[in-house]
Amino acid sequence: MTRFSKLYERERLTIENRLSKALKNRKPYSLYKPAAYILESGGKRLRPLLVLFSAKAAGGKFSKTYNAAVAVELLHNFSLVHDDIMDNADKRRGRPTIHKKYDLCTAILVGDSLLSVAYEFLLKDAGIKAAEILKSFTHGLIEVCEGQSMDKDFELKKIVTIEDYILMIDKKTAAMAEMCCNIGALIAGASGKEVKALSAYGKNIGIAFQIQDDLLDISANESEFGKFVGGDLIEGKKTFLFLKALEKARGKDKKDLLSVIERKGVKHEEIPKFRELYYKLGVIDDAKSEILRYSGKALAQLKFIKEPEDREFFVWLTDSLIKRSK
Amino acid sequence: MTRFSKLYERERLTIENRLSKALKNRKPYSLYKPAAYILESGGKRLRPLLVLFSAKAAGGKFSKTYNAAVAVELLHNFSLVHDDIMDNADKRRGRPTIHKKYDLCTAILVGDSLLSVAYEFLLKDAGIKAAEILKSFTHGLIEVCEGQSMDKDFELKKIVTIEDYILMIDKKTAAMAEMCCNIGALIAGASGKEVKALSAYGKNIGIAFQIQDDLLDISANESEFGKFVGGDLIEGKKTFLFLKALEKARGKDKKDLLSVIERKGVKHEEIPKFRELYYKLGVIDDAKSEILRYSGKALAQLKFIKEPEDREFFVWLTDSLIKRSK
Repeated sequence: MTRFSKLYERERLTIENRLSKALKNRKPYSLYKPAAYILESGGKRLRPLLVLFSAKAAGGKFSKTYNAAVAVELLHNFSLVHDDIMDNADKRRGRPTIHKKYDLCTAILVGDSLLSVAYEFLLKDAGIKAAEILKSFTHGLIEVCEGQSMDKDFELKKIVTIEDYILMIDKKTAAMAEMCCNIGALIAGASGKEVKALSAYGKNIGIAFQIQDDLLDISANESEFGKFVGGDLIEGKKTFLFLKALEKARGKDKKDLLSVIERKGVKHEEIPKFRELYYKLGVIDDAKSEILRYSGKALAQLKFIKEPEDREFFVWLTDSLIKRSK
Repeated sequence: MTRFSKLYERERLTIENRLSKALKNRKPYSLYKPAAYILESGGKRLRPLLVLFSAKAAGGKFSKTYNAAVAVELLHNFSLVHDDIMDNADKRRGRPTIHKKYDLCTAILVGDSLLSVAYEFLLKDAGIKAAEILKSFTHGLIEVCEGQSMDKDFELKKIVTIEDYILMIDKKTAAMAEMCCNIGALIAGASGKEVKALSAYGKNIGIAFQIQDDLLDISANESEFGKFVGGDLIEGKKTFLFLKALEKARGKDKKDLLSVIERKGVKHEEIPKFRELYYKLGVIDDAKSEILRYSGKALAQLKFIKEPEDREFFVWLTDSLIKRSK
């Protein structure tokens, strides 16, 4: 482990610990027990960590941003719970989703409550900049809802352009990462320039992160990935790779790809064929170069970070995000 | 029309007008069109009016609280949309509910978006007291979620006490009215005493309002009420009247009431029988005296309002709420 991965892990555990206490002693249990269940499912906790390290990079302290960090993770889990209902997902990180383990009513209310409690936590750290910080958080939330709505629309649309897709992930994924860096910087009392730079870092790394997600779904090493490869194709999702392939394909290849839209997905046994097509059309490389382009844009913002140590942390973080295998 | 009902109507129309513009020019349409649909369904708009008149009673101006008033109505509609899903309701004010007219995904997202946009509107009027005002709003929201969760729990519970019931409506209905008065007063820069008094007014009128709702459901004049009488009995809802009747009944009457719980509701033709039982047990009068008791508590707070005109408005409002026929 490098010193940065140790630092990340230490702070991730702090967040885990705070999340495990966030809903304690609240009633009714019928609401907060399932809400605690979703918070226990682990993960990278990237969003709260972006809050913490953005604050640090702007001269702030971790200790003043833990509540805000918990808030963004609660917000993220709100969207996971509601998205899982909409996507009719049975599992999340290997465990039954809330609407499967409990029921639809519980899942709707758990999502609503996680969002409400998120605001409660954010207000604890917002201090004199409450208006600005809450505005940023609310803007992030609105973007997430709009992004999810666009994503659902894409399922029914025959024609989705790469531009539409980038706008959608900009809202659904990147706006949240942008907001995390933004509020971390604001709480730390960063200058306007620092706030802008860190926010832009978050936005660009968010887009890179999502395209990387799309790429992993088809090119990951299954044993490291932890789930089977090709899930997006099976669901007929219009990912960056799929849309890029559709743009580049001609003749029979194009017909095959259009049939995925028509049939709303492929069979499990067809995955190798489409993966090969992706390689043939060069869209695996296209995705990789887009990831590099957006992470490059993110890295370019780091010059506004004062301490070399903090700057290096963000370089390490960027690098590990785009090299991750799951 | 009295001068107060004219004033109420004038401001209600201002709110209608502002609600009709609240979601204009937002995209995607697949999200904001159904969101606008629920906002068009009219109603008393009691909650935003509580914000406006609390602000006025504390020396503030309507014009500085319109966005906050819109915010509480958006919040209210968020809870209606999600509650309608959970209650599997087909209609709301005579029109198909969102999940019936559109679909489940749309209804979940519309609720989420209304809540997000509510925060956006509230922030426009929150000014220097943003932290306090947003905290109050968030507290109200958490209470609403917890109250709805308790209400759903009651459906499955065999034993619910009047105390449980009062706690539930305190959270599900009264906390929101309390919050409306609270933020109206805060925006107007009211003194601590005024804020406390107006909030307590809201809380007590909220409880009176809900018991009145329960009472109307069984004793209303059907043609004025606008929907058929006895809906709560058909759904087997544990209302104030039902729980009070259960508390007072003995012998066969008690057995009949317990069978309503067992059967999760009654048939349409049984409604007259149970209405008669309610009259016989005196729970219609019990409900009326509880309404008077809580509205009395509300009225007792009005002495902190400086201007006689503003005080009289609240007396009129209280009176019309407890005398309403729908």
